[in-house]
Amino acid sequence: MRTLRLTLAYDGTNYVGWQRQASGASIQQVVESAFRPLFAGTGSEPVLIGAGRTDAGVHAIGQVASIRVPFDLPATSVWRALNIRLPADVRVVDLTDAAPTFHAQYDARGKSYRYQIATGRVLLPFERWFVWHMPRPCDPELMRQAALHFTGTHDFTSFEGRGSLLLDRVRTLTRVDIRASPGTITVHVDGDGFLRHMVRILVGTLVDVGCGLKPPESVLDALAARVRSAAGPTAPAAGLTLVQVRY
Amino acid sequence: MRTLRLTLAYDGTNYVGWQRQASGASIQQVVESAFRPLFAGTGSEPVLIGAGRTDAGVHAIGQVASIRVPFDLPATSVWRALNIRLPADVRVVDLTDAAPTFHAQYDARGKSYRYQIATGRVLLPFERWFVWHMPRPCDPELMRQAALHFTGTHDFTSFEGRGSLLLDRVRTLTRVDIRASPGTITVHVDGDGFLRHMVRILVGTLVDVGCGLKPPESVLDALAARVRSAAGPTAPAAGLTLVQVRY
Repeated sequence: MRTLRLTLAYDGTNYVGWQRQASGASIQQVVESAFRPLFAGTGSEPVLIGAGRTDAGVHAIGQVASIRVPFDLPATSVWRALNIRLPADVRVVDLTDAAPTFHAQYDARGKSYRYQIATGRVLLPFERWFVWHMPRPCDPELMRQAALHFTGTHDFTSFEGRGSLLLDRVRTLTRVDIRASPGTITVHVDGDGFLRHMVRILVGTLVDVGCGLKPPESVLDALAARVRSAAGPTAPAAGLTLVQVRY
Repeated sequence: MRTLRLTLAYDGTNYVGWQRQASGASIQQVVESAFRPLFAGTGSEPVLIGAGRTDAGVHAIGQVASIRVPFDLPATSVWRALNIRLPADVRVVDLTDAAPTFHAQYDARGKSYRYQIATGRVLLPFERWFVWHMPRPCDPELMRQAALHFTGTHDFTSFEGRGSLLLDRVRTLTRVDIRASPGTITVHVDGDGFLRHMVRILVGTLVDVGCGLKPPESVLDALAARVRSAAGPTAPAAGLTLVQVRY
């Protein structure tokens, strides 16, 4: 059976997240709905697999998804048909034929996230859905010192949102980079995999350090404790964007 | 009487423009409404004067407005009170006491606008209210050659939207700059004053040149003709942002 690989960009503001849920529209669901007419009469239903299950309000510019399809319409025509049907806050940026066995979730080898913090006293209207407005003095240099302790392979149990049934909470981060410009702090995080809410808790912890609430070395204790309460607060969803998935 | 000077940022998507109108909410009106409680019991009504009357859907990061006020609340308190009352798509970025005679419109000596064009085949969800999506091949170098002819002092009659009663259509542009990066073309325009729709018609004309519909020199003919039909189409409002007002 033919497998397609999609690269998706979305403004997650008005969605319950990637995953299908009873409580509202999900990204997975609107893309599957856009596929449905192409599946008509084939006896099968579209099932879209995403590389990462982004939370409600989280955005993506490079989410990757795979789907097995029973039709042989050229990729460009499928791409066009989907974008016509999709709402403007979800776009198929790219669509290509993949190896029949390609699986967007299982084959992913790494992901890159970006987290944007606005530190100015006024939240600009254009940024209001895409940043965490945190108008307190925050020292990016302190955040950088703390961030160094996150890179490498660690048990990130303290940085996992509640409700997960995972057994293995060891992950490797290859980059935790802090970029600061007037009014903005951006955190770039690359890793082989991420626990639930991990980037947001990591950012909340870094901001605690940047604001002087805890010293940079405190993140070592937070990692060692392996309990959620040892880490900082979960930063708001709006600031987070899934930038890229590596295979 | 005391005069305040406001710097405003707004996402113009959901507004009929700067000016009060019967057909829907205007920026002027929502800011005046936010002022109203501060005027209570003074016997006067807030009247806000804007430096530029931006059209429906046009944005601002540095609109300037003046208002005469009958109260002596400190500027910081006024600033805070307004931002609490205003919707999130309109923000008072700065608010200071001005000379009593300060008039945001008459005293303005120049303005800077930015026009953003997305040339990629897919309109990214985050940009959908802030750019003109124009997914055709467009050569920024041709646009630059045409733009050179716009700088300086000209009669811009051909670049004025219909319905104006102005007598003097001579304006001086000090900068018409084209910046290109993959998927984006940004036009920066600085001038001493602007006619109705002038930046948008200027951009529409530059894009006609960039797409090869007309040669760069054709803009000289368009200026000389002094008739609207000699210039290109009016570019969509969404791409335009009032960046700065100079005094």
